[in-house]
Amino acid sequence: MNIQGRPTRTIRPLADRGGVEIIDQTLLPHRLEFRVLDDLEAAAEAIATMRVRGAPLIGATAAYGLALAMIADASDDALRAARDRLLATRPTAVNLRWALERMQGRLEPLPLGERAEAAWTEAAAICDEDVALNQAIGRHGMDYLKWHHARKVGSGAAGVNVMTHCNAGWLATVDWGTALAPVYLAHDAGIPLHVWVSETRPRNQGAALTAWELAQHGVPHTVIADNAAGHLMRGGRVDLVIVGADRVAANGDVANKIGTYLKALAARDNEVPFLVAVPGPSIDWRLPSGAEIPIEERAAREVTHIQGRGEAGVQSVRLTPERSPAANPAFDVTPARLVSGLITERGLCAASREGLLGLYPEAEAGWPGTLQ
Amino acid sequence: MNIQGRPTRTIRPLADRGGVEIIDQTLLPHRLEFRVLDDLEAAAEAIATMRVRGAPLIGATAAYGLALAMIADASDDALRAARDRLLATRPTAVNLRWALERMQGRLEPLPLGERAEAAWTEAAAICDEDVALNQAIGRHGMDYLKWHHARKVGSGAAGVNVMTHCNAGWLATVDWGTALAPVYLAHDAGIPLHVWVSETRPRNQGAALTAWELAQHGVPHTVIADNAAGHLMRGGRVDLVIVGADRVAANGDVANKIGTYLKALAARDNEVPFLVAVPGPSIDWRLPSGAEIPIEERAAREVTHIQGRGEAGVQSVRLTPERSPAANPAFDVTPARLVSGLITERGLCAASREGLLGLYPEAEAGWPGTLQ
Repeated sequence: MNIQGRPTRTIRPLADRGGVEIIDQTLLPHRLEFRVLDDLEAAAEAIATMRVRGAPLIGATAAYGLALAMIADASDDALRAARDRLLATRPTAVNLRWALERMQGRLEPLPLGERAEAAWTEAAAICDEDVALNQAIGRHGMDYLKWHHARKVGSGAAGVNVMTHCNAGWLATVDWGTALAPVYLAHDAGIPLHVWVSETRPRNQGAALTAWELAQHGVPHTVIADNAAGHLMRGGRVDLVIVGADRVAANGDVANKIGTYLKALAARDNEVPFLVAVPGPSIDWRLPSGAEIPIEERAAREVTHIQGRGEAGVQSVRLTPERSPAANPAFDVTPARLVSGLITERGLCAASREGLLGLYPEAEAGWPGTLQ
Repeated sequence: MNIQGRPTRTIRPLADRGGVEIIDQTLLPHRLEFRVLDDLEAAAEAIATMRVRGAPLIGATAAYGLALAMIADASDDALRAARDRLLATRPTAVNLRWALERMQGRLEPLPLGERAEAAWTEAAAICDEDVALNQAIGRHGMDYLKWHHARKVGSGAAGVNVMTHCNAGWLATVDWGTALAPVYLAHDAGIPLHVWVSETRPRNQGAALTAWELAQHGVPHTVIADNAAGHLMRGGRVDLVIVGADRVAANGDVANKIGTYLKALAARDNEVPFLVAVPGPSIDWRLPSGAEIPIEERAAREVTHIQGRGEAGVQSVRLTPERSPAANPAFDVTPARLVSGLITERGLCAASREGLLGLYPEAEAGWPGTLQ
């Protein structure tokens, strides 16, 4: 999507293969700063510290991290060490494992001399495929938004009110986004819509990233405290909720940013459709249910402090008393029973094993390999 | 309760009747600063800007604001003007109206010369009664906590895990608090417990006030992002939720800080008891349901900016992009069907008209007057 009017991907390989350029997302919305990751360690650090985040972009960055490792040392040991280093950065998003296993599967059979070249090509392919998957999600989701719009026009109401959580926009992917791809396509197609952006404490990816990218693209939106989601739904001010996913289990349970479950409960209580945009690589066919998804516990400081722009520039301020501890689970699991539907690159389906297998019949043969 | 080991009420009349001393709660937890409100305008400003907040403390402050107005001018016109000025400060908490109508009812029949004296006495009575009501709520709630503790001990588990939202502790009242009164009494009685404190964006009354007062009193607690509430309940880490109320309708619907409804939904989905501590003056017998409760919309700046302590002291930082608007509804309504029970000064009851009338039979005769 556009940054200051110029189409930009969130991760871009340098022409000389000396690294990949990313946006340092920890500085948004206050400062737009690009950063080159020039080796494995830089890629791992960028994922762990959330300079890049969002399940698809984590996968893409890990792929390039492995490619950068192969340029330095293409041995089997280096390949496995790089995989392990990257796999340890974040536990919840399954795209990380997916991308690394795909890279490993592609590289291991090759002679050492061909690995660097092949790794670079494979990482680029993962990025291009992510863009294509998201565009496909966008088209399917847009059809659904169009249907909502037609209903509203019939009732005399104005545009469609979409609520989202965290950032599942283009900043979370290589381009387009998952949950926001339908929004961008619909907006570009002239469908009037407005997005409720929940700030998504503690790291405020909604207020910082989603609001910023929607503003860059000119999509009408309003930032709210996470707490306001239920009240707005009860007031009839939300037509549908679309969120992304860090991992979807084979039964349709959805691990996503902490707080997603609360929005799903409110949507159900108010008969508001609750949709999860999920590309194939975010589905974990190995997990029978969401109960087995590991939930990352992040530093208490993300709760006790917050970063913002003050008079002296971007800085961190303390919110809590010195003596008060804090806990910071980063994700929660929304049970499939609360999910109205999944929007995948292959279309919409029910959040259930049957629904998923209807779109991905090859998954029955087992993971990994067949699903691409 | 104690501040730095010294028992302190949140509002204290000066001996010379020149004003009342409050804690400026907008500066907590970073700075403890007392402030004298010496006339009607100072009292109104303190309520509107939330230097004092919490339904019971708003009522108490308004009562003293009216008393200060009577000292300056005891005429009928001044009485009505003071009532109107104070009534306009905050729309949602019903204690404000309750206290002002009680003061007006007491003062109007009196000769002008007796009004200032009577007003001061009546405001003091409202404060003393608030303390007594909260202690009674505390005793009833403690019995319930004891029962939970006995159950947990029976199952071999440790202390009782209570979750609360916003601040319904002693800072929200004259003393003891509503939702936290049972916690303080149980803690003092040696029942092991731990409080999950949800930060309560946008104004962070949980992280700033509840955490601070629990720390002052030595009650174990952990601050969490509001988004984490559902995840903790799903994980079995919450035994019960207790919140306060700004207004309870005659059918048991509860208006409370924005986000309360989401916690109630999560509690219901996980079979966690969801209790609302409510003193009589917070019950609005005139309203058949919560749908009629006015919901205050506060400034967008409370969402786009946040106050914390940085290197240069307490300051405000911007969280959102300049171009992104924000909305800030300050309360939501939790339907009675999601409330497991109300804890009042007269005991526990179901959140229903029948439940409430069982404890307050005199309410059937109509409001106001009979209910004290």
